[in-house]
Amino acid sequence: MDPMHRIDRALVAALASVDLPSGPPRLAAAVRHAVFPGGARVRPRLCVAVALACGDDDPALTDAAAVSLELLHCASLVHDDLPCFDDAPTRRGVPSVHSAYGERLAVLSGDALIVLAFQVLAAAPMRQPQRLAGLIQRIASGVGQPHGIVAGQAWECEPHVLLRDYQRAKTGALFAAATMAGAEAAGGAPEPWRALGEWLGEAYQVADDIRDVAADPVLLGKPIGRDQALGRPNMAAAHGLLGAVAHFHQLVAHAAAAVPDCRGAQRLRALVRAESERLVPAALCHQLAQAVA
Amino acid sequence: MDPMHRIDRALVAALASVDLPSGPPRLAAAVRHAVFPGGARVRPRLCVAVALACGDDDPALTDAAAVSLELLHCASLVHDDLPCFDDAPTRRGVPSVHSAYGERLAVLSGDALIVLAFQVLAAAPMRQPQRLAGLIQRIASGVGQPHGIVAGQAWECEPHVLLRDYQRAKTGALFAAATMAGAEAAGGAPEPWRALGEWLGEAYQVADDIRDVAADPVLLGKPIGRDQALGRPNMAAAHGLLGAVAHFHQLVAHAAAAVPDCRGAQRLRALVRAESERLVPAALCHQLAQAVA
Repeated sequence: MDPMHRIDRALVAALASVDLPSGPPRLAAAVRHAVFPGGARVRPRLCVAVALACGDDDPALTDAAAVSLELLHCASLVHDDLPCFDDAPTRRGVPSVHSAYGERLAVLSGDALIVLAFQVLAAAPMRQPQRLAGLIQRIASGVGQPHGIVAGQAWECEPHVLLRDYQRAKTGALFAAATMAGAEAAGGAPEPWRALGEWLGEAYQVADDIRDVAADPVLLGKPIGRDQALGRPNMAAAHGLLGAVAHFHQLVAHAAAAVPDCRGAQRLRALVRAESERLVPAALCHQLAQAVA
Repeated sequence: MDPMHRIDRALVAALASVDLPSGPPRLAAAVRHAVFPGGARVRPRLCVAVALACGDDDPALTDAAAVSLELLHCASLVHDDLPCFDDAPTRRGVPSVHSAYGERLAVLSGDALIVLAFQVLAAAPMRQPQRLAGLIQRIASGVGQPHGIVAGQAWECEPHVLLRDYQRAKTGALFAAATMAGAEAAGGAPEPWRALGEWLGEAYQVADDIRDVAADPVLLGKPIGRDQALGRPNMAAAHGLLGAVAHFHQLVAHAAAAVPDCRGAQRLRALVRAESERLVPAALCHQLAQAVA
């Protein structure tokens, strides 16, 4: 089955499992709005790709891990978009959750998504229940204190922060959780997969910075120039666009080189390169080089 | 060991496990502020009391369940106190988290607490790992969609809601999760323990309504009259104080009667009665009766 179809089917099932008529309907609608239609589903695709490379011998557990990662990512987007943070009116080309459902349901739908992320893991019809505790710890580490994405967002509330620490927690942590969870769900050793996730996370963050400065808001599905408007650290603003693009390509090369030896290594490296082109298209790089010349 | 000491020791250990110098210090401080000093720790005490009544053969798992319930409760208080909900300046006699650390860290510390609640369960040095999946599902049901405390809070965002549905989700759900999780952590059948939790949850909600109208703000540690100010459903406002007090005592009697047959039944019933007196003291009932006469 196509991984994207596999992930979306698992996400639909996860949301359906808690969307009963006896619950508050606007909360259910806000949760659906946060998850569908989705973005590129990068983290769950990464998780599934690594699990497949490791044999994927417990597909229900892989699906649960992938869904959990995506729900946690969606929760972080909903809360990051709140008025007290980015105050983003749109997300993925449609109104953000707080714009569509109000601030209160945005807070609550983020909370509900975090809870559901762990519920889905525990409820998976898994073959290898002895993997559950480790998998939950791995995914939770990518989200919570002290180095997960919630901590990454919290660095924005500190008077002093290193750009690298901030980005590693804000983005890298959940990418590393995705690669390691994919390995763990399939019974592989997780640690060798950490570096791939960390390099990719850093590459995505730099790509996001480039796109925030250079890309088309319609293509991006969210307003551009937000980092500057919000006074947030931005690699492209700090080092210039061309420097950021060069740095991005270095990070992608590191990621491809970090794929551990395994049956699916070639396929994974090809996936990394395809993602690189999707994020920062060669055409955009040419445009930028010409604009500077 | 005294249950209160046991719970506080487990809470301290849980927070210490994620409070590293490499994480954002203000987030760690906000999380600590949300958990210490605590309130009555009612849900974890209830969980431990039921586990003890069921034999408590895996104390590390019981402790993890108790900690998880309290962290989820603390998270809900932090988010309920946010400006978009109750906008409460104080909680437990000290500034609320958003008053002390700002709205952004209040959102993030609530998120971090929810994540930690599940991390603690997965990381417990348990003897019976086969109980983990059921325990997580049980606790998550008390918090998430469609009938957990997040859903209860979301009923406040619906145009129509039944007072009973609202209160059952907002308070009863986590109480039922506490009794059932206590049984499950100790290897007992959870379902027979649901009714005790539900009756107690309803009793606590009615007691809270009574105290919101009648009690001393210093004693309560939070401003009184908030329900009326916020236009929220309140049993005491709807049925008069004396009617609410009579209803409270009925609920406590139902709770005591709902304790399943077990070795610790007598002790649990005594605990229920002691809690009843702590919540709505006989002296307060006399005062109210005299004021009406």
